[in-house]
Amino acid sequence: MSERPLQGKVVVDLTTALAGPYATLLLGGLGARVIKVENPDTGGDASRNNSPYLTADGLGVRRQDADDMSVSMLVRGRNKESVTLNLKDPQGREVLADLVRAADVVVENYSAGVTARLGIDHEWARELNPRVVYTSISGFGAQGGPGSGKAMDTIIQALSGVMMTAGAPGEPPVRFGLPVGDLVAPLYAVIGTLAAVVQADRTGRGQHVDVSMLGALTSLVACEPFDALEEIGLPTRTGPTVPRLAPFGIFAARDGWLALCAPTNSFAHGALRAIERPDLVGDPRFAERDGRVANAAALHDLIADWARDRDVATVCAAFTAHGAPAAEVRDPRAAVRDPLVAQRGEVVPLADPRFGTVAELRATGVPIRMSDSDTTLDRPAPRLGQHTEAVLGELLGYGEDRIEDLLKAGVL
Amino acid sequence: MSERPLQGKVVVDLTTALAGPYATLLLGGLGARVIKVENPDTGGDASRNNSPYLTADGLGVRRQDADDMSVSMLVRGRNKESVTLNLKDPQGREVLADLVRAADVVVENYSAGVTARLGIDHEWARELNPRVVYTSISGFGAQGGPGSGKAMDTIIQALSGVMMTAGAPGEPPVRFGLPVGDLVAPLYAVIGTLAAVVQADRTGRGQHVDVSMLGALTSLVACEPFDALEEIGLPTRTGPTVPRLAPFGIFAARDGWLALCAPTNSFAHGALRAIERPDLVGDPRFAERDGRVANAAALHDLIADWARDRDVATVCAAFTAHGAPAAEVRDPRAAVRDPLVAQRGEVVPLADPRFGTVAELRATGVPIRMSDSDTTLDRPAPRLGQHTEAVLGELLGYGEDRIEDLLKAGVL
Repeated sequence: MSERPLQGKVVVDLTTALAGPYATLLLGGLGARVIKVENPDTGGDASRNNSPYLTADGLGVRRQDADDMSVSMLVRGRNKESVTLNLKDPQGREVLADLVRAADVVVENYSAGVTARLGIDHEWARELNPRVVYTSISGFGAQGGPGSGKAMDTIIQALSGVMMTAGAPGEPPVRFGLPVGDLVAPLYAVIGTLAAVVQADRTGRGQHVDVSMLGALTSLVACEPFDALEEIGLPTRTGPTVPRLAPFGIFAARDGWLALCAPTNSFAHGALRAIERPDLVGDPRFAERDGRVANAAALHDLIADWARDRDVATVCAAFTAHGAPAAEVRDPRAAVRDPLVAQRGEVVPLADPRFGTVAELRATGVPIRMSDSDTTLDRPAPRLGQHTEAVLGELLGYGEDRIEDLLKAGVL
Repeated sequence: MSERPLQGKVVVDLTTALAGPYATLLLGGLGARVIKVENPDTGGDASRNNSPYLTADGLGVRRQDADDMSVSMLVRGRNKESVTLNLKDPQGREVLADLVRAADVVVENYSAGVTARLGIDHEWARELNPRVVYTSISGFGAQGGPGSGKAMDTIIQALSGVMMTAGAPGEPPVRFGLPVGDLVAPLYAVIGTLAAVVQADRTGRGQHVDVSMLGALTSLVACEPFDALEEIGLPTRTGPTVPRLAPFGIFAARDGWLALCAPTNSFAHGALRAIERPDLVGDPRFAERDGRVANAAALHDLIADWARDRDVATVCAAFTAHGAPAAEVRDPRAAVRDPLVAQRGEVVPLADPRFGTVAELRATGVPIRMSDSDTTLDRPAPRLGQHTEAVLGELLGYGEDRIEDLLKAGVL
């Protein structure tokens, strides 16, 4: 466990908000040295000012102390070092140039065109360091998109088609509270970055990696051939149940909800036995899949009637005992506390640099376990500029006087 | 564009169904040589027998010809070579051992414990080739999970909490038609695989990479601090609109639906001008964010009333013209035909090995654009065993007689 996969790789992190910082969080967990560059004039990453904050008295809507950190930053800032740098100042760009010369990877999620205006785009970085992999995450791609080009998660969800894969025909589109548009793009960005690092390690040449939120989420939607399925009469919006896989879907129990997925004969017969109707296993309506699909409504009603007055735990145990896959529907609060997920470190307790581990709060881990390497997010989020002097001194070799001058000039 | 990022890397692909094959599809698009190992006795990957099929007459529920391929395989089999191999036969395992010796990566998505029973688990592969990265994708992790351990996508969605981030309080959980459980795990598996490849290229040692569907999706849910938000009074299930960001959400127009995301003063004032109510910009209920949140229902009603009798295109154009981010809600059929997404190759036309590009069908691409490398999925899916002789002959150096004997023995 002594060495992490990306040990020795330096990432210059120019990202803010969610999509970009989640990409660099994963790179940090995998062992890269992530140097987060933040604007001293605006208070750094906007996520630092997202309510709620962790205070000495626990969670609060407002800061009690200037050092209180937002939960967003506590989650996304782990395993990163914070350096302040004003990129609109020519001296700031010179410091950034030195960072890029020392880097293996640059990640940015400015709006399309901004890095060119700031004079820090891929062409500039490549001149400084031909080996560097320069990754851009944007709403519609590095060349920009239609309209205002504002790529908020809900806009991306709407355009990608994903909202129309849930709910039933005629119902409104379904907006997810989980920002899947913001969260899927960084996964592809990390894949592209690492593939380009493999290539750069081999060839000595980096390149520009360009991932769009719209393209990422639409590509995920296009993993399923929704229009081919509809063309042969398999509608994709069917509400809580899926008649073509009956018995299949979400059912209400007395104290909650559960999912049952029993499309095969073996599973379906187990489900019938679980609801105390073994007599129906040989019934021509339910014995084979074609019959179950034709009689899906009746079958789903039988299950719903049986489950309605029982506890979720009882219903799930009965289905499982008869070999039919079933599970309770959990809310996020319960889900992130799953003992197996905790044991595997896929979700971890959240730590504050001052208060230590805060037992009540949970945060995303790196959901990748490796036999010979650690992928734990084990260093708490940094204060704004906490590592400025260390990085400029140790990594870039700047003397104390030069750092002092840059501080006085407002560059840092 | 002459060299792909993973050029020269060999992936032995033991996966079936969706999660595993999507991981190796991405590795193939990034330039790895993906050798898909399929069981000759069962007709290979089960996806080969997923209706619908592409026939000479177009899409059909049933095959017309033995060579007709399923849409699932046409999508997931691209940029892969197919080798048949019976892994229950000791001679089959010997051939697999030779493949593993030639490989950089092995990917499998058997149920937990199966590779050990077959005698082809990570320990076995490591003995043969210490450099190999061996990636497992499973429902609950390589050590198995609770209950039946059947990890169907809907079961994973239920357990992960994601179903309770959509809809409104008291409403049933929301099942997504897009199998996000199946699709997110392979993204983390590719990230873990590539990170381990970077490490193996550096150290000469591979390792086991273990990704669970439940851990992957729960980790994604834990990117947002849902319980911290609820603790300070920001409920996460709010239906189509989000009062705390008002005006924000999904609205009905005459001929469809649209998303409006206008939480800032500038966006919100633009939205009021767009609905021809510039008089309300200075109204104390709507001028500042606190007022808009307190009067969210009234604000959303104003917008809903104005949009209801207008076309989606008109409504979106009005919002956009006034600087308020808005977009139509598209269904998957329309979304995968977005011109920008097509131009960037994030979704591509689907090709059949016999019929060529089938203009009507679309399939996922690799949504990662690289300045100096190609990531196109440009080779159509293989027939079952199409590359058996070529791979055994060229890559493993088997003579014709040996291949003939293995064929006669039913090993291939």
